[in-house]
Amino acid sequence: MLDVANEAGVSKATVSRVLNKKNIVRPDVVKRVFDAIQKTGYRPNILAQNLAMRKTNFIGFVMSNVLFDGPYFSTLMNHAASFCEESNHQLVMTDGKHSKAEERDAINFLLDMKCAGIIVYSKYLNEKELAEIISRTTTPIMVLNRPVSDHPQHAITTNHYQSACLMMEHLVQNGHRSIAIIRGNPNSGTDQQRYRAYRDVLEKHGLPVDKELEQCGNWALKGGYLAAVRLLECDRRPSAILACNDDMAMGAMRAFSNAGLSLPEEISIAGFDNSNMGEYLSPSLSSVSVPLGNMVKVAILRILGENERAQLISISGSLVIRESIKSLTAPE
Amino acid sequence: MLDVANEAGVSKATVSRVLNKKNIVRPDVVKRVFDAIQKTGYRPNILAQNLAMRKTNFIGFVMSNVLFDGPYFSTLMNHAASFCEESNHQLVMTDGKHSKAEERDAINFLLDMKCAGIIVYSKYLNEKELAEIISRTTTPIMVLNRPVSDHPQHAITTNHYQSACLMMEHLVQNGHRSIAIIRGNPNSGTDQQRYRAYRDVLEKHGLPVDKELEQCGNWALKGGYLAAVRLLECDRRPSAILACNDDMAMGAMRAFSNAGLSLPEEISIAGFDNSNMGEYLSPSLSSVSVPLGNMVKVAILRILGENERAQLISISGSLVIRESIKSLTAPE
Repeated sequence: MLDVANEAGVSKATVSRVLNKKNIVRPDVVKRVFDAIQKTGYRPNILAQNLAMRKTNFIGFVMSNVLFDGPYFSTLMNHAASFCEESNHQLVMTDGKHSKAEERDAINFLLDMKCAGIIVYSKYLNEKELAEIISRTTTPIMVLNRPVSDHPQHAITTNHYQSACLMMEHLVQNGHRSIAIIRGNPNSGTDQQRYRAYRDVLEKHGLPVDKELEQCGNWALKGGYLAAVRLLECDRRPSAILACNDDMAMGAMRAFSNAGLSLPEEISIAGFDNSNMGEYLSPSLSSVSVPLGNMVKVAILRILGENERAQLISISGSLVIRESIKSLTAPE
Repeated sequence: MLDVANEAGVSKATVSRVLNKKNIVRPDVVKRVFDAIQKTGYRPNILAQNLAMRKTNFIGFVMSNVLFDGPYFSTLMNHAASFCEESNHQLVMTDGKHSKAEERDAINFLLDMKCAGIIVYSKYLNEKELAEIISRTTTPIMVLNRPVSDHPQHAITTNHYQSACLMMEHLVQNGHRSIAIIRGNPNSGTDQQRYRAYRDVLEKHGLPVDKELEQCGNWALKGGYLAAVRLLECDRRPSAILACNDDMAMGAMRAFSNAGLSLPEEISIAGFDNSNMGEYLSPSLSSVSVPLGNMVKVAILRILGENERAQLISISGSLVIRESIKSLTAPE
């Protein structure tokens, strides 16, 4: 800064006045300062300025690295970065690591940075703790995929129960009577909603509930594979599987192919997430499209205070029907 | 801070002295201050403190959101977050967007934050520009997957040429004489190295080079699919395909299955990246394991000044042979 002042032949205070756009500097002096800035390569510390101004164009994103591996994370980040860019903001992502304390640290770090808003995909902090964090700050904090009943405008959720019902009804309509489920993790709210839908649709149609047909795959390829191996050992093989994400569905497909079963002729399967890969599998995977992109867009619009535009965006799931479900009903 | 001082019955200066660990404060006063901090919920602005101290435990990561979609990005981030955590650092990721200027902005932002070091996966800045950025700052900047000849200690590269030669030699040893390539993007250095290996190994074994067998798939599932469709239209169908990443290999597999070809009996395929999915495809995909995790680990160790430990880590590619390549040679 001193170099700039010397180069322009003005005081440091004048340089500062020019940079802070105070209109008390003569235009020719302003020009001299800008020329000097160019010549000296001086770059003001943008972050320090932002901290002083208490406003930045950053949008923070907190997520635990436990969730980094796999298509779900890259899809989320891809949408978040694109929508930030569309609205002239810069995405800054930090790691929530493995505990409530670390998720809090990551949020606090982004608050200290004076982010315009923060999107939290929380794995450890519960609803009550998130509500407290939201009410303690004026910075808009948006919680993805988890309800916060005290602050409904700060929670962006999609109805996983409803989406799972859609897929279960589709399986039943196609004549499936013995349907197994590969759950993600029974501690996850998303998993619980999907499982409840599975049970409710079975009951609604008077179909048997069989604990043997309920396996857990921990959301992973390998877990899906192992769950399918266990399903193949059941006394009565199901005609269709509802896997609670595409990764587990793909793992299961490999297990069925190892067992010499042809898909979908001998066994049908459906996933969730509609990941890119699903379209290119053989058979291509029928799945539920979870509107992750739209959910992130709504979060960013709400951060920007554009609540009316946010309201126009659908965050409902929808079916993507491809080849992996066989119809068992006779053609009409 | 005033609340804390009032609560503890000390001056603001004393609170500050306690927080900055100056040992001139009586132990009972220290205790009173900490009790008051707990009671008032006061949280010092960590970032402002860091800026003042000119040192943080952040490790920055810059990457363009063009690369966010797909398993490559999530694998990178997963490794980066894990190794940051192992060394008690916090990963902060920013988006390099779509231009040199934006990549520079992202780096400058992380410099302003006083990161302990910055990892750059650059898509737009060239070697010369990166060299200039490296020499202009005392913050260690590590460039992933791109040589910087002026600063070899700041560039972490793996030999893609050598790895691609390994896979090509494996195909030739298995009796393949007509081998096609699905390139990523001819502007990419990684792609150029792999393509050069393809050509060199063909020439070394006196095998024909056929421009019709060289297709481009733009690193994507769909591109791989379309490239394979074009290869199927060739007069002479190749017996094996070298796809320059797993995504393109998976897209190609779907095209072959659409055409009624059975894999690997009628056509063999190999990929690069050894992505998680490959193991669960039918047939499972033979691939080249690119040591992304180790590369990130080396970058972080160099940032921490642990060059000796960094040197012990291998960043060579290796073959992962599964089911997707058929041996055409008679058993000995």
